[in-house]
Amino acid sequence: MPDLPFARAEYDIRLAKTRSEMARRGLEALFVTDPSNMAWLTGYDGWSFYVHQGVLLTLEGEPIWWGRAMDAVGAGLTTYLAADNIRGYDDTYVQNPDKHPMQDLARLIREEGAEGFRIGLELDNYYFTAAAYLTLQQALSGATFQDATGLVNWQRAVKSDTEIAYMRRAAAIVEHMHDVIRERAEPGIRKNDLIADIYHASISGAEGHWGDYPAIVPMAPSGMDATAPHLTWDDRPLRTGEATFFEIAGAHKRYQCPQSRTLFLGNPPQKYLDAEQAVLEAICAGLEQAKPGNRCEDIARAFNTTLNKYGFQKDSRCGYAIGLSYPPDWGERTMSFRTGDKSVLEPGMSFHFMPALWLDDGGLEITEPIVITQTGATCLCSTPRALVIKG
Amino acid sequence: MPDLPFARAEYDIRLAKTRSEMARRGLEALFVTDPSNMAWLTGYDGWSFYVHQGVLLTLEGEPIWWGRAMDAVGAGLTTYLAADNIRGYDDTYVQNPDKHPMQDLARLIREEGAEGFRIGLELDNYYFTAAAYLTLQQALSGATFQDATGLVNWQRAVKSDTEIAYMRRAAAIVEHMHDVIRERAEPGIRKNDLIADIYHASISGAEGHWGDYPAIVPMAPSGMDATAPHLTWDDRPLRTGEATFFEIAGAHKRYQCPQSRTLFLGNPPQKYLDAEQAVLEAICAGLEQAKPGNRCEDIARAFNTTLNKYGFQKDSRCGYAIGLSYPPDWGERTMSFRTGDKSVLEPGMSFHFMPALWLDDGGLEITEPIVITQTGATCLCSTPRALVIKG
Repeated sequence: MPDLPFARAEYDIRLAKTRSEMARRGLEALFVTDPSNMAWLTGYDGWSFYVHQGVLLTLEGEPIWWGRAMDAVGAGLTTYLAADNIRGYDDTYVQNPDKHPMQDLARLIREEGAEGFRIGLELDNYYFTAAAYLTLQQALSGATFQDATGLVNWQRAVKSDTEIAYMRRAAAIVEHMHDVIRERAEPGIRKNDLIADIYHASISGAEGHWGDYPAIVPMAPSGMDATAPHLTWDDRPLRTGEATFFEIAGAHKRYQCPQSRTLFLGNPPQKYLDAEQAVLEAICAGLEQAKPGNRCEDIARAFNTTLNKYGFQKDSRCGYAIGLSYPPDWGERTMSFRTGDKSVLEPGMSFHFMPALWLDDGGLEITEPIVITQTGATCLCSTPRALVIKG
Repeated sequence: MPDLPFARAEYDIRLAKTRSEMARRGLEALFVTDPSNMAWLTGYDGWSFYVHQGVLLTLEGEPIWWGRAMDAVGAGLTTYLAADNIRGYDDTYVQNPDKHPMQDLARLIREEGAEGFRIGLELDNYYFTAAAYLTLQQALSGATFQDATGLVNWQRAVKSDTEIAYMRRAAAIVEHMHDVIRERAEPGIRKNDLIADIYHASISGAEGHWGDYPAIVPMAPSGMDATAPHLTWDDRPLRTGEATFFEIAGAHKRYQCPQSRTLFLGNPPQKYLDAEQAVLEAICAGLEQAKPGNRCEDIARAFNTTLNKYGFQKDSRCGYAIGLSYPPDWGERTMSFRTGDKSVLEPGMSFHFMPALWLDDGGLEITEPIVITQTGATCLCSTPRALVIKG
C-alpha cells in the first residue's frame, strides 16, 4: 500500500460527501477529470493530465482510475486503489486524430454496467475538451449526461486539520520566498536570476518541509508591465524607480499557499504610498468581515467601500478559494470575493484574499492567504504587510 | 510597439500559412485557444490560460485577441495587435456558473459579421472545454462549426531559423541542467534539494540566455517509482543502488528543449547495463532513419527492431514534435514516432526522440532532442549519451 498524504478514513469521508451530493442531484455516476479532484478522491499524483484521464465514481464500491496505460503504474504507486480499479488505455489512443481515448472510456462504462446511468461530467474543466464530450456522447447513446462542473470542488471547500497543516507548511514556504526577494532584489539584477533564487527557495522548502511545484509559475512584472496581471519574466534587470510585484505561491503535497508582495527600488512616488495606504486599510476592512456566517460578497463590499473612500477603484474580484491544486490554476474555482457571491463562510474554508490594484503606470499587490476560524479569520503568513522598499 | 521575439514579417508568414490551410478546409474563421497557437500567431505571452481566452482569425485583416479584461493589458504589451483588435470581457464572467465567457465571444463574432461563417474550433484542446463549445453552439445558431484541432499546430511543424536559434538556447540550458545533476547528485541528498538546484540552473539559463519556465515540471522518480513515467518529486533522499531518471527541459522565450538522462548511484546491475546498450544501439538505428523524405514510423520501426533484437520491448511511441509550448505539454501534439504515423520528415522539423524504457523494477530514459536537416538529423544537445554512474 503506497504511503498516501491522508489516512484512508479521510478519503472515505471525501467519497461519502461526494456521493451524497451525487445522490442529491440524481447522479448515478460521476466522471472527474480535474486533476485536483482526482487527487482529492484517490490520492493520484502525476503530471499526466496532458493526456485524457479521469476517475469514475458510482454510488457504491471503490472509484476507478482510468488513463493512459503507462500512467496506470503511477496510479498504483500513488493511490489506495486495488489493481482491478486501475484501468489503462493503450498508447495508440494518445494524440492520435484517428481515435479518441473517450471511446475506451465508453467501453469501460459499458463494462461497469453504467451505460444507462445518469452521469455527471465536469463540462467546464480544463482537461475535459469539447471533443471528449462529443465522443462520449456518440459512444454512449443510452446514457444521460449532466453538468457536474465544480461538484467535487465544492466538497473540498472546508479543509480538514491535515489539509490546513499542509497549507501552513506551504505558507511557511511562501514567507521564505518573500524573504529571499527582500534579501536579493537590487538594481541591476537580471529578473530571471532573482526568479531562479525564488524557485530554489520554493522547492528547497521551509521549516524542514519540502516544496512541491506551485500550480502557477511566479508572475513578476516590473514598471509598465505590472499594469497587466499575468506576465512572467525575462532577463531585463530590475531598475531604480520601478515597482515589481511578485505573485508567487508556496506548495506542499500539492496544497498551495499564494501570496503577493510589491517591491519598489528607490523612493516610491506619493501615489504609490497612497495606494498602499488605501489597500492596507481596505484589507483590514475586508478581514473584519471574514467570519463564519458572513458571505463572500461581504468581504468584497467592505474592501471596495474602503478602497473607494481613498479614491481607488478595483473592477475585478478580490479573492477566491484555495487548497489542493494542479496547473493551470491555484484557485479552487468555487467562491469568489465579489458582489453577488452569496456563499456563506464556514470555519475551515481557505481563500486567497487578493486585493491587487493594476494602476495606469504600474501594479500594487499586497495579498493574504486566510483560513476562516470559529470566530473570524486567520492569516496563514506573517510576511510583513507593506510595500517592500529597497535602496 | 512591444519588443516581440520575432520580426513582424515572420508573424505575417504564419498568418498566411494558417489562412491558406483555413481556405483549403473551407473555413472562413478560426478560433484558437491553444496558448502556444495564440503566441505563435500574435506573440501573446502570459499565464492567463486558466480563464477562457483565444485568438479569432478570419481570412483578412489582423487577428483579434479576446480574453479577460485585465489580460487585455498584457495583450497590448506582448502582441503586435492594435488596441482595436484586443477585446476584453468583464470580470463577472470569470469562474461564475451563472454566465459563460463564450456568450461574450458569440457577441464579438456577431459584431464582426462572422455569425454565419464556417468557424474552425480546436475541439480537442485543453482550454476549450465542453461547456465552451455548448455555449458557443447555443449562442450562434447560424454558424457552422468544424473541428480544427491541430490546424495551427501543423503549420508550426517546420521551424524558422530564429525558432531553431531559440531552441538551441533552450538546448544549452538543458545541457547545463544535466551538468548540475552530475555534479550535485549523491547518496543522501534530499530529492527536492536536487530539484531546487536543477530549477535554479534552468531559470538562470546558459551561455548568457535566460531560462523561461518549461511546459512540464521536472519528472524525477527513483527506484520502483521510476517504473512510472510521470511522477514528480518529494523529499526522500537519493540512495545507493537506485536509479533515478530526470525528464527535464530547458526553455527560452517559450521554446522547449526536453532531454532525459538516468542516474545510477553505485554499481548498476548487469540488466541496467544491458538495457543501456540496447537503447543506445536503438537510438543510433532510429537516428539513421531521421532524414527528409522518411516517415515518422520509419524511426519507430528502426528503433523497435533494434531494441527487440536485444530482448527489450517498448509499447509506447518513442518521440513527438516539439517547439513553442505552454503547460501542460511540451509536445506539439502533431507527429509521433510510432507505427502508422506516416508524416513525412522535412528539414526544420524538431522532435524529442524519446526512447524511454520503464522496466519491472525501474526506468531508463536516455533521450535526444533533434532537428531534421537537409540530409539527416542533428542532435540539439551534446550531453553525453550514456547512463550517469556515480559512486
